[in-house]
Amino acid sequence: MTSRVTPAYRHIYDRLHEQLRGGVYAPGERLPSERQLATDLQVSRMTARAAVDLLVQRGLVERRERAGVYAARPKIEQVLSSTAGLSQQLLQRGVHPGAHVVSFSRLRAGEVSPEVGMQLELGPVEQVFRLVRLRTGNGEPLALEESYFPAQLCGDLSGADLTGSVYDHLETHRGLRVRRSRQELEPGLLDAEDALLLSTHPGSPVLRVIRTAWTEKAVPFEYARDLYRADRIRFIVDTMSRPNPPAEPSDTEGSENA
Amino acid sequence: MTSRVTPAYRHIYDRLHEQLRGGVYAPGERLPSERQLATDLQVSRMTARAAVDLLVQRGLVERRERAGVYAARPKIEQVLSSTAGLSQQLLQRGVHPGAHVVSFSRLRAGEVSPEVGMQLELGPVEQVFRLVRLRTGNGEPLALEESYFPAQLCGDLSGADLTGSVYDHLETHRGLRVRRSRQELEPGLLDAEDALLLSTHPGSPVLRVIRTAWTEKAVPFEYARDLYRADRIRFIVDTMSRPNPPAEPSDTEGSENA
Repeated sequence: MTSRVTPAYRHIYDRLHEQLRGGVYAPGERLPSERQLATDLQVSRMTARAAVDLLVQRGLVERRERAGVYAARPKIEQVLSSTAGLSQQLLQRGVHPGAHVVSFSRLRAGEVSPEVGMQLELGPVEQVFRLVRLRTGNGEPLALEESYFPAQLCGDLSGADLTGSVYDHLETHRGLRVRRSRQELEPGLLDAEDALLLSTHPGSPVLRVIRTAWTEKAVPFEYARDLYRADRIRFIVDTMSRPNPPAEPSDTEGSENA
Repeated sequence: MTSRVTPAYRHIYDRLHEQLRGGVYAPGERLPSERQLATDLQVSRMTARAAVDLLVQRGLVERRERAGVYAARPKIEQVLSSTAGLSQQLLQRGVHPGAHVVSFSRLRAGEVSPEVGMQLELGPVEQVFRLVRLRTGNGEPLALEESYFPAQLCGDLSGADLTGSVYDHLETHRGLRVRRSRQELEPGLLDAEDALLLSTHPGSPVLRVIRTAWTEKAVPFEYARDLYRADRIRFIVDTMSRPNPPAEPSDTEGSENA
């Protein structure tokens, strides 16, 4: 954000950002070197570097080691204010969804983090499936998902095709649909281990999403901790207020006060 | 996320996290030193440090220079899937909202970033107010807001009390209410300049929110670029699907596919 005085690198950043948005550089095309940018734009090399760093951080360009800086591919949009799963959202955007199973196990709720049993309303001896998957779009790693499903409600998932949509499976075989979801968002940076699984660099921006999903009967049937690559995904929250002011105050809807 | 094998520091992190959640350490209380933790939990000091680093990154503890690590105050919840503004959401949670005006000016749309004119559907000579504010909760800096309002639609904001809710002002004086908002979320890290304004450390996690808000007549009346301190705010997206499956596919609602 610019405050009182806009620093020089922000001007350079804005200029490069507009060139990228305007298509001056095609996705995958190499940008001029920082030395060249500094000369062309009559700024210090440090200023040029700060501007490029910000472009990298916002996922507009990619820095490839010892090879320079390249215009990034456009991000894939994900609407967080939707109960539609990743598979469906990718399909709607013409992106082919994929999933690699990293690990799959049946455990007792008491064996996993207490948060899981609490959110899924399970006693310690009740069984849950733990499913860790790498989700891809057109073959490119986008997210690491760690999901928990109560075995009694969701049936034996070991017979399901876990490379496809679990929501589809649960709807077809168990009549379960998402009626409500609550997601908590934690911005952060990828650590080395997760970066490796997501085929990107440690320190890339990431959005951790902790989600609980409820069925139409208000029973929790999924608890998940997902990591989404923020350098490849554009996160959208689209909200409509009620057409008329609510009669009572509400925690989650309303239309007053900025 | 844990994948195949959970590294030692994650176990330590989980343990400390549960102690913090369970109230073993009160907000503001000092945790044992990393050296002490390493001894108590029989791990290397590097492992203890990695666990504490993760607690710091997630905003569960605060590291104070040369003074150790302290249990953080609980985060303030902000529901992104609501058109209610920050003032209203803070008030609903018993937190006193405040705003300091960092800068306020009347400009032509052609003088600011092209994104502003595009989102607010303004020609280059039409006027906009640019308002930069530091938003606080109980006096503590929470967010930096950079908002643009079209002058013709919103009237002369120079007469408004800009330390209060602009949405309230616009509703009272111009009959404008948020009917819809679209927010784009960009996780990242604070740079030195913004960290200074927000009274926190460079490199703290931050959520950049780029928002357009429309009136009940579907006219855009606010374009904003906000920076929210992710170490002090818990971001929530609460979503209901339609009770019955939609007849047509929709981009923003639905209830199938994980």
